[in-house]
Amino acid sequence: MISGHCSQLRIKYSDVDRMGIVWHGRYLEYFEYGRTEWLRALGMPYAGFEERGLLILVLQASLTCIAPARYDQVVDIDAGIAEMPGARMRIDYEIRHDSELLVTGFTLHAFADRTSMRPVRPPKDFLERLMAAGRA
Amino acid sequence: MISGHCSQLRIKYSDVDRMGIVWHGRYLEYFEYGRTEWLRALGMPYAGFEERGLLILVLQASLTCIAPARYDQVVDIDAGIAEMPGARMRIDYEIRHDSELLVTGFTLHAFADRTSMRPVRPPKDFLERLMAAGRA
Amino acid sequence: MISGHCSQLRIKYSDVDRMGIVWHGRYLEYFEYGRTEWLRALGMPYAGFEERGLLILVLQASLTCIAPARYDQVVDIDAGIAEMPGARMRIDYEIRHDSELLVTGFTLHAFADRTSMRPVRPPKDFLERLMAAGRA
Amino acid sequence: MISGHCSQLRIKYSDVDRMGIVWHGRYLEYFEYGRTEWLRALGMPYAGFEERGLLILVLQASLTCIAPARYDQVVDIDAGIAEMPGARMRIDYEIRHDSELLVTGFTLHAFADRTSMRPVRPPKDFLERLMAAGRA
Repeated sequence: MISGHCSQLRIKYSDVDRMGIVWHGRYLEYFEYGRTEWLRALGMPYAGFEERGLLILVLQASLTCIAPARYDQVVDIDAGIAEMPGARMRIDYEIRHDSELLVTGFTLHAFADRTSMRPVRPPKDFLERLMAAGRA
Repeated sequence: MISGHCSQLRIKYSDVDRMGIVWHGRYLEYFEYGRTEWLRALGMPYAGFEERGLLILVLQASLTCIAPARYDQVVDIDAGIAEMPGARMRIDYEIRHDSELLVTGFTLHAFADRTSMRPVRPPKDFLERLMAAGRA
Repeated sequence: MISGHCSQLRIKYSDVDRMGIVWHGRYLEYFEYGRTEWLRALGMPYAGFEERGLLILVLQASLTCIAPARYDQVVDIDAGIAEMPGARMRIDYEIRHDSELLVTGFTLHAFADRTSMRPVRPPKDFLERLMAAGRA
Repeated sequence: MISGHCSQLRIKYSDVDRMGIVWHGRYLEYFEYGRTEWLRALGMPYAGFEERGLLILVLQASLTCIAPARYDQVVDIDAGIAEMPGARMRIDYEIRHDSELLVTGFTLHAFADRTSMRPVRPPKDFLERLMAAGRA
C-alpha cells in the first residue's frame, strides 16, 4: 500500500434485498464512499478535482462477495492504492464487519479533462502527495 | 384529466426490501418514469426541455401506499395533469397491479432557466400541446 | 416535539443528478436514515422491532424542496414526533446545510405484525420511552 | 453462447450522474435486468427458483466501461452463458446503444438452499432447458 484509508458506514434498510442481505450492486456505492474518504484524508477531496476541470472516470469495477453484509451493521471500508497512478489508477477495496472479510474488489480509473472528456495525466500535486504518503 | 398517459414497468429485485415489498422511495422513481413517458407520448420528451435550456424542477412530492407492490410484478403507472400548468405544474399518479390500486401520489414542479436557475413560464408550445390534448 | 434527534450525513456522488443537485427521491433515504438514528438514540433501534416480530410500515411520505443539496455537503437531518403515536405514527423531518433549511417533510407509519401483516398497537415499552423523553 | 437473450431498457434521469452519464454502479442493475429477462425467455423465471426454495447468489461481478450511456437512450442488453453451469454459473453481458458497444461484464453465481444458505447443484430441469436451448 502506497496510501490508504479506512472509513465506516452503516448498512441502510434500502440497501438490503429480500434475502435480508446487501444487494450486491450497493457495494460499488460503498467502494465510492471509501475512495472519496481516502482522497479527503489525503487532503485532495474529489470535489477539488472537478473544480480544477478534471474528472476521475471509472473504466472498470470488480467485486467478490465472500460473506453477506446485513441491515444495520457498521462495516469498515479499506480503500487505497498499491501502485503509483499513471495513465490508469487502480484502487483496491476490502469491506469488513467485526474484522470478518465480507467483500473485496477494485476499480480502475482514468483522469480526463472535464470539457473535452480527453484523457490527461494525473495532476502533479496529487502524485507528490501520494509519494509523500508512501514514504511516511 | 387534461392530459395523461399509462405506462408499464416491471418491479426489479433491487427495488424490493427485506419485507419482500417495494421500498417506498422507489415509487418516486416510478412516478418519474410515468411522467417521462407521459411527456414523450405528448410529443414533448423531457430531454427536449433541457436542450432548450429549461429544467423542470421538483418542488414537492407525495405518495400514499395502499397495498404493496411485489417483486417481478408488472405495474401500470398513470401520470397526468388535471389543471393547466402556470407558475406551478401538478402531476398526479396512480400505480396499479391487475387493476388493484397500490399507490397514489403527486409531484409539484416549476420550470426554471437551466443557467440562472430562475423560474420561468412554461413554454408556449407545451401549453398549446396540452390544450389540444385537453380538447381531444 | 415529544422526541427528536439530529443526525448528519454526507451527500454522495451517486445521489446527485445531472443538474448537479440531489435527485429528489434520495431525500426519502435521508428521512429513513434520520428516523433510524432517532430510534437508535431513543434506545429502541428499528432492528429490535423486527426481531420482536413487528414491522413499521410506511403509509405515506411527503417532501418539500426549498433549496437544493449538493455533492459532498454534510447535511443535518432532524427527525422526530410532535404527537404520541396511536394507530398511526407521524414523523417530521427537516434537512439543513449550514443552518439553511433545504428540505422538509413527513412520513406516516403503522405498526404491523410481521407474519400476518395485520395492524397492531405500538409496543408499550416504546410508548413509555417516548413519554419519558417528552417529559425530559 | 449456449443460451442468451437480448432485452431493452431506457436510461432514467435518476441513473445519470452530474457528468451527464450513467453512474457506473447502475450497470449492475442493468445486468440483473438482462439476466432476469434471459431466464424468463428461457421459461425459467427467477421468481420460480425462489418459490422452489432456491437462491441464485452473486459471488462476483465485474464491468468494463467502453463508452458512456446517456439519459433517455434505449440500450440493448445481451445476457447469456457460454458454458453449462456446474457448482458455479457465469453469465456474460454486453450493453449497446445503436449497435455501439458501451459496457461489457460478467457475474458469477452459485445456487443455494434458501433456508440453510448452503450451496446446491443447479436444478435438473434448468440444465435440461439449457441443453435443449444449446442444441437449438
